[in-house]
Amino acid sequence: MLNIVVQKYGGSSVADVQKLKTVAQRIIRTKNAGHRVVAVVSAQGDTTDELLAKAKEISQSPPKRELDMLLSTGEQISIALLAMAIAEEGEPVISLTGAQGGICTDSLYTKAKILRVDPVRVRKELDEGKIVIVAGFQGINDMGDITTLGRGGSDTTAVALAAALEADVCEIYTDVDGVYTADPRLVPDARKLDEISHGEMLELASLGAVILQPRAVELAAAWGVNIHVRSSFSDATGTLVKGDDQMEKQRVVSGVTRDMNVVKVMLVDVPDRPGVAHEIFSTLAAEGINVDMIVQTTKQGPVTDLLFTISQDDYDLTKKLIDGVRQKLGISNVLYSDRLAKVSIVGAGMMSNPGVAATMFGVLAENGINIEVISTSEIKVSCLIEKDKVETAVQAIHDRFKLGEEVSIA
Amino acid sequence: MLNIVVQKYGGSSVADVQKLKTVAQRIIRTKNAGHRVVAVVSAQGDTTDELLAKAKEISQSPPKRELDMLLSTGEQISIALLAMAIAEEGEPVISLTGAQGGICTDSLYTKAKILRVDPVRVRKELDEGKIVIVAGFQGINDMGDITTLGRGGSDTTAVALAAALEADVCEIYTDVDGVYTADPRLVPDARKLDEISHGEMLELASLGAVILQPRAVELAAAWGVNIHVRSSFSDATGTLVKGDDQMEKQRVVSGVTRDMNVVKVMLVDVPDRPGVAHEIFSTLAAEGINVDMIVQTTKQGPVTDLLFTISQDDYDLTKKLIDGVRQKLGISNVLYSDRLAKVSIVGAGMMSNPGVAATMFGVLAENGINIEVISTSEIKVSCLIEKDKVETAVQAIHDRFKLGEEVSIA
Repeated sequence: MLNIVVQKYGGSSVADVQKLKTVAQRIIRTKNAGHRVVAVVSAQGDTTDELLAKAKEISQSPPKRELDMLLSTGEQISIALLAMAIAEEGEPVISLTGAQGGICTDSLYTKAKILRVDPVRVRKELDEGKIVIVAGFQGINDMGDITTLGRGGSDTTAVALAAALEADVCEIYTDVDGVYTADPRLVPDARKLDEISHGEMLELASLGAVILQPRAVELAAAWGVNIHVRSSFSDATGTLVKGDDQMEKQRVVSGVTRDMNVVKVMLVDVPDRPGVAHEIFSTLAAEGINVDMIVQTTKQGPVTDLLFTISQDDYDLTKKLIDGVRQKLGISNVLYSDRLAKVSIVGAGMMSNPGVAATMFGVLAENGINIEVISTSEIKVSCLIEKDKVETAVQAIHDRFKLGEEVSIA
Repeated sequence: MLNIVVQKYGGSSVADVQKLKTVAQRIIRTKNAGHRVVAVVSAQGDTTDELLAKAKEISQSPPKRELDMLLSTGEQISIALLAMAIAEEGEPVISLTGAQGGICTDSLYTKAKILRVDPVRVRKELDEGKIVIVAGFQGINDMGDITTLGRGGSDTTAVALAAALEADVCEIYTDVDGVYTADPRLVPDARKLDEISHGEMLELASLGAVILQPRAVELAAAWGVNIHVRSSFSDATGTLVKGDDQMEKQRVVSGVTRDMNVVKVMLVDVPDRPGVAHEIFSTLAAEGINVDMIVQTTKQGPVTDLLFTISQDDYDLTKKLIDGVRQKLGISNVLYSDRLAKVSIVGAGMMSNPGVAATMFGVLAENGINIEVISTSEIKVSCLIEKDKVETAVQAIHDRFKLGEEVSIA
């Protein structure tokens, strides 16, 4: 039996007829190279935004089930058109909606989670020699209703299908040709990585290097799916994202990233009694707000200051929720700031190399950059600094860890 | 249990946000008047044509299954938006695709037939007090693939649902306010009919008065569904289409129609031997071409002339097919003409009133109009005449049968 390759093409890769044809040819080439191919496709270009705008014309808060009914048409259009483009080349092909592709999810409309994949139909069509095109971003719940997986959900669809089909590799085609040691627009000598571990990629994805959806990387790590991040505009090898244990070499630091999409929230004079922090953060969590760094500073007396960061997208909702609990908890003042940004280093080798964090702080100090907040995990160090210092910081860190040079083995 | 009303809204009735809101309000009014409401909706405005154009950019003959995958998104967008507009008014509502609505069809993609309706989900949602919005024009086959019912298929969806749900009435909302004795744009004193039989409506629908899809009327007749044809722009009563046996009065002639969309095909010197006609017409039938009038004239010798009419839309395909069999059958010449049109009278009372056809021929003769071909059924008489004489013919026939006056009872 030929091995299976799952490919995922984003909205910009299928935005018009010419691009659809290019994708069709690449899929056919992959098949002719001796693979069975399953392609996961997103909605064309700005389709999703256009559909959202239509909904907003009718209602500011449309029922989420109906929003998913609406949004899922975007991918359905893509898969039909791509199947037509492939059929036009004389290749047997079939398109499948998320439901037909067996993508079973929970009922959290607009941000559903994949519970299981039941790829009976996909396998049947592959066995008949067809190229199979599956709608990304969408699934079906137990009631037979259409759900969507949230922004970037097509990555998750691809990884889940790759796991269920035991595919050799899940290729994610994007408009960049791989994962870099830093953003090449910022750091001219940034280097493309040949490989990176799931764990490192997950940190990068969460830290603002939006090449892959974090949830997709999470699933890939859990199910041992190797992801090949590569360009839809070239045949060059991209970056392979694979299991930590499969990495040929461990780098101390794999990359440096920045995240400009940060809002600092400062709760001033929070009563220092048990349960207050829980009340605040569970309120935010219930609405799906991701709180990133959290710092609590002790003051004199029965109050503390509580500082945390959120993403800019969650600002309005966070403000509303905090306003709601502020009175009740007796918080005297709340300050918001979007003048800060986050710079981070990620590297699996960090764990066994003490002093990496210290080196980073040193670089920042040498460049006269003040650190407002620090947050660390086993494989990353993040610092909140002033936005206008970010470029200097990224370049200086990149230089100090010699990321532009060949790999430093731990 | 409250009775059920099925309403069908065409593409022009839901073309923009304002129209969607108007439809939403009408549906809510119907519910508030004490009914359970199921609304069947077409794709917005020109959506279907736009989707078709997208497909044509990629392929001149895309796989029909993929075409249905593509086209069905049009109604899916409509139902989601309409459900949002109703929800915005605070009414409980749910949208269902054709598949979710239990519209089971055969696998003749792009012109599938409804085999059965399994309205379990529709009933469940109605029982929960919701307004149910169902996507017209689409269904699902036994393989779980999306099919479409062909142009005007939403009428068929509505009638099939009305039958399956044992609805009181199936209301079809259009941009005219009912069925007229003639096209009011042509005949100023044309009169709106209060009621018409299924049989008469079927003839009218087939003869070019495109208010309802013929297949929908056929199903309504078979399943005894009463259709109320009415305007989406007013609350006025329209025309009730009902069983022949339920008609309060039988008119000799109910209406006069014209069909400009006619091509005459003349096969010259067809060998006069058994099986030739069968070969010709089975070839056309296999491709779904509707042949209307057929006339065979005997000539001297071993050949005949064979004349038939088709609709203009089928011209290209017919020409290709006839070219294919011409040589083989030894037909010496084929002539096509689109200079003719069909004028017809329809009336259930005709059966018991001999001489109706003769009266029609007389009117045409008096006006110096030559009849090229005649075709009759129990309740209609059609004549092929020159296109530029059609307006005169329709007006003269309308006058002679006094269709503008109150009903003539048989």
